[in-house]
Amino acid sequence: MPGIIKERLFTPGPTPLLMEAQASAMVANVHHRTEAFRQIMRETLDLLKYYFNTQNDVLILASSGSGAMEGSIVNLVSPGERILIGTAGKFGERWLGLAEAYGIEAVKVEAPYGHPLDVGEMKQRLEQAGPFQAVYVQATETSTGVSHDVKALGEVVRNYPQTCLVVDAITGLGTTELRPDEWGLDIVIGGSQKAVMIAPGLAFVSVSEKAWKMIANAKLPRYYFDFAKERKNQAKGETSYTPATTLIISLHSALQYIKGLGRENLIANAALLAEASREAAKALGLKLFAVSSPANAVTAVCAPDGMDSGAIVKEMRRRFGAVIANGQGSMKGKIFRLAHLGYYDIPELFAVVAGLELVLLKLGQKVELGSGVRAAQEIYLRRAG
Amino acid sequence: MPGIIKERLFTPGPTPLLMEAQASAMVANVHHRTEAFRQIMRETLDLLKYYFNTQNDVLILASSGSGAMEGSIVNLVSPGERILIGTAGKFGERWLGLAEAYGIEAVKVEAPYGHPLDVGEMKQRLEQAGPFQAVYVQATETSTGVSHDVKALGEVVRNYPQTCLVVDAITGLGTTELRPDEWGLDIVIGGSQKAVMIAPGLAFVSVSEKAWKMIANAKLPRYYFDFAKERKNQAKGETSYTPATTLIISLHSALQYIKGLGRENLIANAALLAEASREAAKALGLKLFAVSSPANAVTAVCAPDGMDSGAIVKEMRRRFGAVIANGQGSMKGKIFRLAHLGYYDIPELFAVVAGLELVLLKLGQKVELGSGVRAAQEIYLRRAG
Repeated sequence: MPGIIKERLFTPGPTPLLMEAQASAMVANVHHRTEAFRQIMRETLDLLKYYFNTQNDVLILASSGSGAMEGSIVNLVSPGERILIGTAGKFGERWLGLAEAYGIEAVKVEAPYGHPLDVGEMKQRLEQAGPFQAVYVQATETSTGVSHDVKALGEVVRNYPQTCLVVDAITGLGTTELRPDEWGLDIVIGGSQKAVMIAPGLAFVSVSEKAWKMIANAKLPRYYFDFAKERKNQAKGETSYTPATTLIISLHSALQYIKGLGRENLIANAALLAEASREAAKALGLKLFAVSSPANAVTAVCAPDGMDSGAIVKEMRRRFGAVIANGQGSMKGKIFRLAHLGYYDIPELFAVVAGLELVLLKLGQKVELGSGVRAAQEIYLRRAG
Repeated sequence: MPGIIKERLFTPGPTPLLMEAQASAMVANVHHRTEAFRQIMRETLDLLKYYFNTQNDVLILASSGSGAMEGSIVNLVSPGERILIGTAGKFGERWLGLAEAYGIEAVKVEAPYGHPLDVGEMKQRLEQAGPFQAVYVQATETSTGVSHDVKALGEVVRNYPQTCLVVDAITGLGTTELRPDEWGLDIVIGGSQKAVMIAPGLAFVSVSEKAWKMIANAKLPRYYFDFAKERKNQAKGETSYTPATTLIISLHSALQYIKGLGRENLIANAALLAEASREAAKALGLKLFAVSSPANAVTAVCAPDGMDSGAIVKEMRRRFGAVIANGQGSMKGKIFRLAHLGYYDIPELFAVVAGLELVLLKLGQKVELGSGVRAAQEIYLRRAG
């Protein structure tokens, strides 16, 4: 490939950076214990409420999303209490690992990889196996490209005044409609390297009044991820520990861009790209990994029979600079994943589909060149007019 | 279009910026009268020789390419002397304007828009209508997307020891093979906002020994564009007037990238994109404006009968953020131009062709979606394997 190859991330995090936000960080030479920074912090927290679509408190943590997942356990639960976990992939399994690490008994409701959680089954467990301190799920299971019905689950959990609903929306925010306040999503978790278009290093949590009441009584040990302490400090534009200043400044800039674009339009953009990807894959004779309820955040596609998906991933990068994701765990080699969360536009999708057609052809598949692109173009015509 | 639209330049200058080079400029806090800057200047001039493929002196001017075009007249010609101009488009006509501004008699050889210059006709004029102080042509006529045979012209002009050959290679450099030293291209002109991947503001000129001898005797008035004065200063890493420091620093960075990629590979990349564009346009039933000798730098495509090319330009930008160029002068509304010079890769071409298909369809053309992309993909397969 002796030509120009631009590397572009089509991974479900990190995602393409908004250059305006990068530039803001570049010129940020600020100390965090200043009124200038406190002002940025307060504005960013307000913008995050817009992004989360909530009036609940939102906190910023200097950690990855997994830190906020840990925080949502240690702040809500006391030793001896039990939690209910819905899992349908690698990120659902992370809840189980966290519960185990803190010696908390977890009851799990499991869906096979590629399927969404059965809310009816979760309802039944809540009724029959409770009480539970909290219920833990993903909005979008990034490893399988499946979306869970957190709205329906919220309607169930709100009948339990002593049970919080915790939603990992790390790839759900900005890609799918979420109404934390109406739906009763007590804790919602986000991360910076996702649809919010900036680099990794920040996690976000929104916390409802119901959750704050439980947090006041939760006894698991915690220090860095102490939500109540953060709430008190962040109300003043401060943080308990040194904040990741340049990331917060780029977040401030990216959220202004998103507010200008419109939260709903960001979600509609991901939905367009996801539907176009699915139709392109089908037109190329590929099977989708999500059996139902596919996520807008990421499309998981099965490699053709007998082909290692790693070969597709490798050739996409070598030939076209397109960094797509392999499957995780037992899905490795079987699927590849194409992300749509954040700063992507439709021409990029046309390009990646055209590249995929060529890669499949070079790997020995029968491909009608242009047919995947055409399927994506037809979705564009239907949605964008 | 309520989704994410990323604006991308597909214009024949300015062209997409190399971000690494932009970042170098961002952190450049340097005074030009320092050894640190002189070192950068000397290295940049050496890298420019690589880029120009010449051992001749290369100078950097703080001006657009047109300034260097003016310089190549005022430094070579004296009042009363005559020049020969080859023109086949808007940039060829610029030579005529310059000659007129300085009261220099110009004999012109003209080719119709869309055609290359007839070197035989230029040879005849040199034989029959001389003597000429210099011959002025473009390597690539950007307004029509046509490439002129400067190699053949060099073979002709080298028989005239008192006549220099001046080549505007502003869009030719980095897109087409040039061998100034072997081919006898005495002055070659370049610009920063072209295949060299940085922002506008710099012009470059290479000057042969034959040209330096004539420059010593040329009497047209000149001050800012005094090549001999620049040569003396730039040999020391200095400039006669304040240099555009950040542009030179980003040029230094971009030329290092190009040297790593390989000058020939940069040219091959443009050739691939140009051929793929031509085949895509033909597959979509569009006529190419260049009747023969199409340039690698830019592809000029005729709008379908009865359609204003401005509508295509407008819709490409509105729907897909793709900034393509309309025709200039009498070609406005009749053609659109898609550039390939510099920092472009093949996925971007797939994307722009997919977008063009949709725009043509929305403007009422009959289009088989995906057919232009397929034609481009087939060129990729043939060239890149």
